Amino acid sequence: MKRVKIHDVLAADAALGEIVVKGWVRTKRDSKGFSFLEINDGSCLKNVQVVIDHTPEIVAELDKITTGASVRIDGTMVESPGKGQKWEVRASTIRLLGAADAETFPLQKKRHSDEFLRGIAHLRPRTNKYGAIFRIRSEAAQAVHSFFHERGFRYVHTPILTGSDCEGAGEMFRVTTLEPGERNIEEDFFGKRTALTVSGQLEAELMALALGDVYTFGPTFRAENSNTPRHVAEFWMIEPEMAFADLEDNIELAESMTKSVIGKVLDACADDVELFAKFVDKQLMPTLDNIMQNEFVRLPYREAVDILRKTKKKFEYPVEFGTDLQTEHERFLSEEKFKRPVVVYDYPKSIKPFYMRCNDDNETVAAMDVLVPRIGELIGGSQREERLDVLQERMAEMELSEEEYWWYLDTRRFGSVPHAGFGMGFERLLMLITGVTNIRDVIAFPRTPRHLEF
Amino acid sequence: MKRVKIHDVLAADAALGEIVVKGWVRTKRDSKGFSFLEINDGSCLKNVQVVIDHTPEIVAELDKITTGASVRIDGTMVESPGKGQKWEVRASTIRLLGAADAETFPLQKKRHSDEFLRGIAHLRPRTNKYGAIFRIRSEAAQAVHSFFHERGFRYVHTPILTGSDCEGAGEMFRVTTLEPGERNIEEDFFGKRTALTVSGQLEAELMALALGDVYTFGPTFRAENSNTPRHVAEFWMIEPEMAFADLEDNIELAESMTKSVIGKVLDACADDVELFAKFVDKQLMPTLDNIMQNEFVRLPYREAVDILRKTKKKFEYPVEFGTDLQTEHERFLSEEKFKRPVVVYDYPKSIKPFYMRCNDDNETVAAMDVLVPRIGELIGGSQREERLDVLQERMAEMELSEEEYWWYLDTRRFGSVPHAGFGMGFERLLMLITGVTNIRDVIAFPRTPRHLEF
Repeated sequence: MKRVKIHDVLAADAALGEIVVKGWVRTKRDSKGFSFLEINDGSCLKNVQVVIDHTPEIVAELDKITTGASVRIDGTMVESPGKGQKWEVRASTIRLLGAADAETFPLQKKRHSDEFLRGIAHLRPRTNKYGAIFRIRSEAAQAVHSFFHERGFRYVHTPILTGSDCEGAGEMFRVTTLEPGERNIEEDFFGKRTALTVSGQLEAELMALALGDVYTFGPTFRAENSNTPRHVAEFWMIEPEMAFADLEDNIELAESMTKSVIGKVLDACADDVELFAKFVDKQLMPTLDNIMQNEFVRLPYREAVDILRKTKKKFEYPVEFGTDLQTEHERFLSEEKFKRPVVVYDYPKSIKPFYMRCNDDNETVAAMDVLVPRIGELIGGSQREERLDVLQERMAEMELSEEEYWWYLDTRRFGSVPHAGFGMGFERLLMLITGVTNIRDVIAFPRTPRHLEF
Repeated sequence: MKRVKIHDVLAADAALGEIVVKGWVRTKRDSKGFSFLEINDGSCLKNVQVVIDHTPEIVAELDKITTGASVRIDGTMVESPGKGQKWEVRASTIRLLGAADAETFPLQKKRHSDEFLRGIAHLRPRTNKYGAIFRIRSEAAQAVHSFFHERGFRYVHTPILTGSDCEGAGEMFRVTTLEPGERNIEEDFFGKRTALTVSGQLEAELMALALGDVYTFGPTFRAENSNTPRHVAEFWMIEPEMAFADLEDNIELAESMTKSVIGKVLDACADDVELFAKFVDKQLMPTLDNIMQNEFVRLPYREAVDILRKTKKKFEYPVEFGTDLQTEHERFLSEEKFKRPVVVYDYPKSIKPFYMRCNDDNETVAAMDVLVPRIGELIGGSQREERLDVLQERMAEMELSEEEYWWYLDTRRFGSVPHAGFGMGFERLLMLITGVTNIRDVIAFPRTPRHLEF
């Protein structure tokens, strides 16, 4: 007999007859003469209900079966007389595959704190909430790939190991084959200082300037010693890069991609998202609907600063032209002032990296950030400086070595074209979609200072 | 006027009228009164031919345009009277976007060696061959994701930073925030020895034992000081893991996935693959057809050894029960003996890692390798040991610390189930699909000993 995944049992249009179901026991209730079990196999949020009549053999097997145990059930799929499910399984046999000792199994049926569950990150995907998160994470990643694929973007794998420090975007981890204490870099694997990438952008640019539209989607690293709900040392980033594109194209891409991915997740993971709307963030569905249904506001940085200076709201950090916006400002613009996503663009040159394109005012660059409710900055990007002389001038100002970036400059020497791109932190997107407020809870095995378990 | 990508121009059913084309000049030929240009924008292998009549302004602009320059062309799409293309562009204007100095631009129109092109990996995607490789790479990655998505597998991101050394699968890179020479590990970011992962398998198992069927697809690392055409320090790996599955399911998955991805690439990248069949490996299409059309041979390791011992062929390495197969043996089985892919299974326990499931003979484990022509091992996998006591015994034999792997053992303590999975090196798959024999040429920016450019 064929094993059927529980998702396929519950979604069936007609009864499938004799089936085998395998999964983990969520609950077991014994009645007189029969027992009910709720079985989950991870294929969907919902459990399948199993009803089994007692015989001496079955009672003996049921005695060994507790919450968390894995079982195989052979039975018949029938319409469920109970509420809340269309189908259930009338079992003829049940077999224990792997026991879960009731004394020591940490996931007994009760509410556990997120903090407790972080300590057992190897088991938390077996709970409703974390199962839902990781199904949503998977579906969101698929949606990213299909969005770009449909638009003719090429997926490129930019290197994780790097000899350059990109944008000075953050503290970097060092990579080495020397033992602690050894210091002869000449003997190191690469013979030079090596780090984990903080962004694949520069290499994505190289590929875009050959293939046209490309994107990366891979892990990036920051060695920031911050213990906040917004920081992890290892996270995933989506970085598209388009040749023959300007800031306006970039903003359009950011808006389309955000809406496309959220839309696909809402379609494919309705039950999973609903769990978060019910138990995690009551405002989740209105927030997501708002993003889906409204055009993002386009707002020059200068006007953003004016708005922030004129409002009565008190901020922790004051704002003037030349200061970077803090999360409190970003959230105010998006949540309170405009009540929808806001794209702030044309930031001061002084607070942005060397590769962003200088505007004609010589004070601002063609940068853009997408600000969304609850999260603040979801996306940061820019049109890139394609003019060799301007780029060299900026690098000199910022004391970056032309020698180190010869290959990057080469793309401006030979057939340079206007191009633009952005970076979206994948975990921030997941926090937006689920309402989860701690980044450690949307990534399977979070890496933070002094935490390297699993 | 709208810019149209060259792929869409060449694939159009009907003329699109007035269009804008942007791209890089591959060749320019001047005739009396007009010029021909071949333009490529990376969206496909083929160039679009542009014909432009001379006026004094246009001649002045054309004078600045050389091979490698980027241009914008406004014109009308018309049926091409020439051979080899259906459409061409009759240009009304041409504008130089970025020049490419004919003296210094390294990609003049001639054949360059792969070795030379490796030195300019930032520009090589602008050649026909490397443009094709990276389009194929992208399409193959998409095909991997869609194969698993269609089968209900969840995409999981397993950590890159790890505190355990998994399977002892190879030399590991160390990751640190200490400066060279510093040795106080207590002050390091994670406060313990940290490495780059060599495999996401153990964490993928944790996820499979909650979500059912999962896969990872991400970068992995080996600090092997080998300068061979088969080794890079950073490469991408695909690792599915299935709960409630055995070795037979695993072999079926490996065969289906290999065929599915190759089939999708052949469909989506026909022109690109054809280039390799013409210029790189004349046997490419027969090799791929053979893989697509034949069932993979299933061959117990014991029988493989018998065959290898009985053949007249001389091998560099002798074989007996208990030796690992070398590439020469793997290729012999696949290329000469069976002339199709071969799945060797039930390897000796002594040469395989601790997590593979012991067979009842207590000599072999439920391991399997997929061997293909030209490459040798494409896939390696196994059913995993789900029995706690057997696993503990194996770990003790191999002197692995139970304390360090408490989380891995937990999954066998609580609701353990039979499960299986494998790893496929993505670059090996690309070498198979393209016939390229040096792994450095199927990854954008290869990392090898003392090579960390770009």
